[in-house]
Amino acid sequence: MSGVADPFGEQGPRPPVEGPYAREEIALALRNAALPLEALRYEVTPVGLHYTLSHFDLPWLEERGFALQVCGRVRRPLALTLAELHALPQRTLRVTLECAGNGRGLMSPRYPSMAWLHEGVGTAEWTGVPLARLLKSAGLERDAVEVAFIGADRGFDRGVEHDYGRSLKLADALSEDVLLAYAMNGAPLPPQHGFPLRLIVPGWYGMASVKWVARIEVLERAYDGFQQVVGYHYRKFSGDPGTPVTHARVKSLLVPPGIPDWYTRARLVERGAMPLEGRAWSGAGAAIVRVEVAVDEEWRDAAVEPAVHRFAWQRWRYAWKATPGEHELAVRATDATGATQPLEPEWNTNGMGNNAVQRVRVTVR
Amino acid sequence: MSGVADPFGEQGPRPPVEGPYAREEIALALRNAALPLEALRYEVTPVGLHYTLSHFDLPWLEERGFALQVCGRVRRPLALTLAELHALPQRTLRVTLECAGNGRGLMSPRYPSMAWLHEGVGTAEWTGVPLARLLKSAGLERDAVEVAFIGADRGFDRGVEHDYGRSLKLADALSEDVLLAYAMNGAPLPPQHGFPLRLIVPGWYGMASVKWVARIEVLERAYDGFQQVVGYHYRKFSGDPGTPVTHARVKSLLVPPGIPDWYTRARLVERGAMPLEGRAWSGAGAAIVRVEVAVDEEWRDAAVEPAVHRFAWQRWRYAWKATPGEHELAVRATDATGATQPLEPEWNTNGMGNNAVQRVRVTVR
Repeated sequence: MSGVADPFGEQGPRPPVEGPYAREEIALALRNAALPLEALRYEVTPVGLHYTLSHFDLPWLEERGFALQVCGRVRRPLALTLAELHALPQRTLRVTLECAGNGRGLMSPRYPSMAWLHEGVGTAEWTGVPLARLLKSAGLERDAVEVAFIGADRGFDRGVEHDYGRSLKLADALSEDVLLAYAMNGAPLPPQHGFPLRLIVPGWYGMASVKWVARIEVLERAYDGFQQVVGYHYRKFSGDPGTPVTHARVKSLLVPPGIPDWYTRARLVERGAMPLEGRAWSGAGAAIVRVEVAVDEEWRDAAVEPAVHRFAWQRWRYAWKATPGEHELAVRATDATGATQPLEPEWNTNGMGNNAVQRVRVTVR
Repeated sequence: MSGVADPFGEQGPRPPVEGPYAREEIALALRNAALPLEALRYEVTPVGLHYTLSHFDLPWLEERGFALQVCGRVRRPLALTLAELHALPQRTLRVTLECAGNGRGLMSPRYPSMAWLHEGVGTAEWTGVPLARLLKSAGLERDAVEVAFIGADRGFDRGVEHDYGRSLKLADALSEDVLLAYAMNGAPLPPQHGFPLRLIVPGWYGMASVKWVARIEVLERAYDGFQQVVGYHYRKFSGDPGTPVTHARVKSLLVPPGIPDWYTRARLVERGAMPLEGRAWSGAGAAIVRVEVAVDEEWRDAAVEPAVHRFAWQRWRYAWKATPGEHELAVRATDATGATQPLEPEWNTNGMGNNAVQRVRVTVR
């Protein structure tokens, strides 16, 4: 059923599929946590409702014996315990993180992988040490061009054994907004969110926010890890060199109104005043300036709350008067750069960055 | 794709299916949280790794304005705020909860529903008020025979609109081990685990531990809610009156050793000493007295830690010497009543209580 002859042997990308979902896709959907859309009501997502995407097993890490390595093209390599990190000046940022593969399961055909529909998103308060400060302490060599972040999680992907790792170009790594976080929503990081330490790269899709960071390596060359050069690209066809996935595209989601059917999640709404609400965000850091709601393809402006936290989603509201019958609701956001959500997914081989408008069918009685 | 013509119209059970999984099954697997099996290493499951199964939407509840109703066949109906509940004598119990549908996705054919493979389980420290105490305060009328627990979550199942509700027979409800919990692992209940109040019925499958309890109704008759009389039965065929699902069957799970392939979750293990570990439990409250591990169908005894917490899983360990090649690992528990896990699922129409032994294929290099 997997379509992978030897999971530990070198292999090309999996062929796209349509229709029902494979056992592997169910297993991944079970392993990884998702935001039930009604939890969009929380400005800060409670732990356990925030999405997780873990490529390999959650590593078993304990505070005792943990030391973050900062090495490579630095003048003073560092090995910092958690206590030492806690003693440094800290910063807290409210950040919306979204999985780059969010919406993959809605693409057709789709890449066999984590088959998100809409739920791969969440917002948290992340507290930690600004990365730039650590890099400054270590002292960058003149030939430094990238900074790689290597996690403690290890496994195979398409036959390539590797620790999960990602890099940032030096200018991005030195942004004052990039954190090495040790707390989430005011408590120590939960294991599934990277305990004891995770990178937070505000505005980028979640793959950049490396969990279980064990080593920070300053490089004089481009990092060539699997997740950097093979994974996380927009590719139009197999073999397309593509372009790297970076910032999260403008997007909005709606709390499905009314009550659900258990199995189909079909929605039943009472006639009359039905306030709609949801969240919208744009990872480029540009504020959301417009949200439109469509009822049966007729678009109207919703009210958008102003951006208070630069990297967090904004709430929007719309006063719908529900009339009996079947309706389709849709929502579309536009950010300050003028970027707006497409009506249909922009297809790419690995199902990255699907920010097509969400559509919710409801029955009003 | 749903095979449900009108989700809001009366209907029979969905026909069983085989092979790939429907969009609805993916959506449910995404909505509900699961225990990644490596998290079996935690004696107490961190929040966010504990399974959840929520039939309808998570209700939006706030402490302000909340009052638990205790009504029906009682002499003194009660309406208790959270502060009043907190002021009552409390008790903390460590309890393993498992979804009655855990393993449903492995049955063949399977009922289209939440397609758990192995992950619908977790252990937490639940703190709250013993239910018996509340019932005593309210004063049971002589004709009381059952106690129903009605949640604040509402929706449809097979065309029947209802609040999620379950009941216990009076003798079960008066057990000193049944709690009305307001805390989980020492913190207020997270929304997805029933904030502000959930019932905890130790030893029973999770459907009995009603979340978001809004009303406790003492009845002089058998409760006839959908989840009591239609859902949660062992039925051999459609139309079989069946038997109600109650206590969790004896079961064990193994932390899959080695490292995974991202997509297939195939496991690669290094040759040599490879300690295996996992957890075993029996909801009837009987301690686990034996755990056996099979490597390629040869069963050997594992070491089982003694039961310290009566309703929590027990750890087991097994020292495996891994030899190169392909192997199948399996684990089987036996409880103090002599009940042991079957090698194959005991099929029933709705995929309830699958406690067949877990099998894990590994490649040793």
